[in-house]
Amino acid sequence: MSWQKNLRKTDPYTAGEQPKIQNLIKLNTNENPYGPGEKVKQAIKDFDSESLKLYPDPDASCLKHALALYHGLEDDQVFIGNGSDEVLALTFLTCFNGDQDLLFPDITYSFYPVYCKLYNINYQQIPLKEDFTINKEDYYRSNGGIIFPNPNAPTGAIMSLEDIEDILVHNKESIVVVDEAYIDFGGESCLPLLSQYDNLLIIRTFSKFRSLAGIRLGAAYGNKEIISYLYDIKNSFNSYPVDRLAQAIGYASVRDSDSIKKNALKIINTRERVSGQLKELGFSMPHSYSNFLFISHNTLSASYLFDELRKEGIVVRYFNSPRIDNYLRVTIGTDEQMNKFLNTIKDILARK
Amino acid sequence: MSWQKNLRKTDPYTAGEQPKIQNLIKLNTNENPYGPGEKVKQAIKDFDSESLKLYPDPDASCLKHALALYHGLEDDQVFIGNGSDEVLALTFLTCFNGDQDLLFPDITYSFYPVYCKLYNINYQQIPLKEDFTINKEDYYRSNGGIIFPNPNAPTGAIMSLEDIEDILVHNKESIVVVDEAYIDFGGESCLPLLSQYDNLLIIRTFSKFRSLAGIRLGAAYGNKEIISYLYDIKNSFNSYPVDRLAQAIGYASVRDSDSIKKNALKIINTRERVSGQLKELGFSMPHSYSNFLFISHNTLSASYLFDELRKEGIVVRYFNSPRIDNYLRVTIGTDEQMNKFLNTIKDILARK
Repeated sequence: MSWQKNLRKTDPYTAGEQPKIQNLIKLNTNENPYGPGEKVKQAIKDFDSESLKLYPDPDASCLKHALALYHGLEDDQVFIGNGSDEVLALTFLTCFNGDQDLLFPDITYSFYPVYCKLYNINYQQIPLKEDFTINKEDYYRSNGGIIFPNPNAPTGAIMSLEDIEDILVHNKESIVVVDEAYIDFGGESCLPLLSQYDNLLIIRTFSKFRSLAGIRLGAAYGNKEIISYLYDIKNSFNSYPVDRLAQAIGYASVRDSDSIKKNALKIINTRERVSGQLKELGFSMPHSYSNFLFISHNTLSASYLFDELRKEGIVVRYFNSPRIDNYLRVTIGTDEQMNKFLNTIKDILARK
Repeated sequence: MSWQKNLRKTDPYTAGEQPKIQNLIKLNTNENPYGPGEKVKQAIKDFDSESLKLYPDPDASCLKHALALYHGLEDDQVFIGNGSDEVLALTFLTCFNGDQDLLFPDITYSFYPVYCKLYNINYQQIPLKEDFTINKEDYYRSNGGIIFPNPNAPTGAIMSLEDIEDILVHNKESIVVVDEAYIDFGGESCLPLLSQYDNLLIIRTFSKFRSLAGIRLGAAYGNKEIISYLYDIKNSFNSYPVDRLAQAIGYASVRDSDSIKKNALKIINTRERVSGQLKELGFSMPHSYSNFLFISHNTLSASYLFDELRKEGIVVRYFNSPRIDNYLRVTIGTDEQMNKFLNTIKDILARK
């Protein structure tokens, strides 16, 4: 035996590839094809580099206040972290500490089981229906917590506010986390339910709608008690996970929300156009409320399409997992990128 | 019972105050009084805000390579995280997973016991000698890991490379972590020991020497196996803890190391001058190898001095803990700030 016995082994999450090759069309990690906007650009330009010698505000108070105003919440209902992945990790550690199993869908954000393994949280994966929607009644059972993305990833399918409310009503003994990473692409947020359900926690990211995947900002919205426990856990892990520049950039982004919404509308329009054309080419998919499509072809396998697209310099995401191994997740890029994608698909189909 | 039963309770770390009042002389969190330098300023100016729409390189490869070159290591001996606090947290979770107790000094960085509580790590705090130095023989016993800062915090006292090597030799069955947050202010790093001891892990921060407390960068250096386990745990927690701007800024800082060393020399000179004058005023202290002094007066109590300094707009750090509750930790600021500090101390002494 040696020092190796003291090491903790885990099974890490595999993020979508960040290729270092130039000129690829990158449709694999659901980034926003439009930039983060003029106010962010200006915030970086105006930033006083000298101030970096000082620690940041550990609570990111200005950004927190801006988000609270934006959503009509109190400041102490807002938690800010280093990307929604960190917010999720801290949420798993804080909120799913009971004896019973955590519940989440079998097809969902693949980081959830990784967090469970990291923190020794027991969980059950509840199968989605055949059409990839959640059957709410499956969550009417004793549990140690519930989490699901809405819209779901990687399917893009949405759950109605009424159904989410039913899950909340049937689970007053546990915390229900709704991961709204993709909510700003046409879905209906459950933020209005926060005032009625103190067991609801909502997670958001700056990576998709706000085009800030590169700066790492995420938030949680909930009742003051859950939020304060989240801060206690965060302050037991890292006092200052959000740096000075990220705070300034996040603040600028919130102030630029109107232009950002225009970009989201562009993405929605592109998505609707592309999904229509893909259907004509023999693809089926759940209706997407996100900035990606989850597509399956009626004759060509997803793994074949993935390889052929890659050869043409187009990177999409393929999950070799049960039930979804014949699907590709395709991020909605600019119209130009998606035209290239559609033409390439047509070429691949023509070759067969 | 309600959803509250599922919440995890903890006892968080309390960081030094980040006062929002202007014109205070802030000597309480060991920040560097000099800015991060021209290359960092230029890196921010040159940064393409548009690139923030894309996720960062999850491994911060460019920065990792620059650090490896700077220290004469291989790239895969370098781990990068969101400040050394995150690096430490992930190190506790990765490296101290054995059955036996972790060992660290009774007087040390007060985040260590917080990490232990967060991750349910059993630990023993080993008393420092009366002069606040580590008695190496106390660590020649069966354990699940060892960690100490060198120089130690909040004392500033150092341990020789020979003594650290003796601890490594006597602990081949466990991982020994040396937290070198303050090593660049005159101490001798144990980096040369890395090639001989595969159970050694060294932690560094960009917050002190590199004046980048505001950007959150930390690193760990060790053998490839420990480093790869650290990345696995990090990738089970947050794929991208270090954002694009932080990576660019860290890289610029490493390229600016010569100017940064000049600032460290200024701080060392100020420290030596101020410590001499404080001794003449009736203070005693361990010899400091860091950017702070740990001082105790022969007649006035530390808590009284803390309050009086605060009234005059000077903030230092006071720990109301056993053995050190008559000490103040005073960050070394600019010569001008330290002259104001010395004059205020003289005024307080004259009033008594």
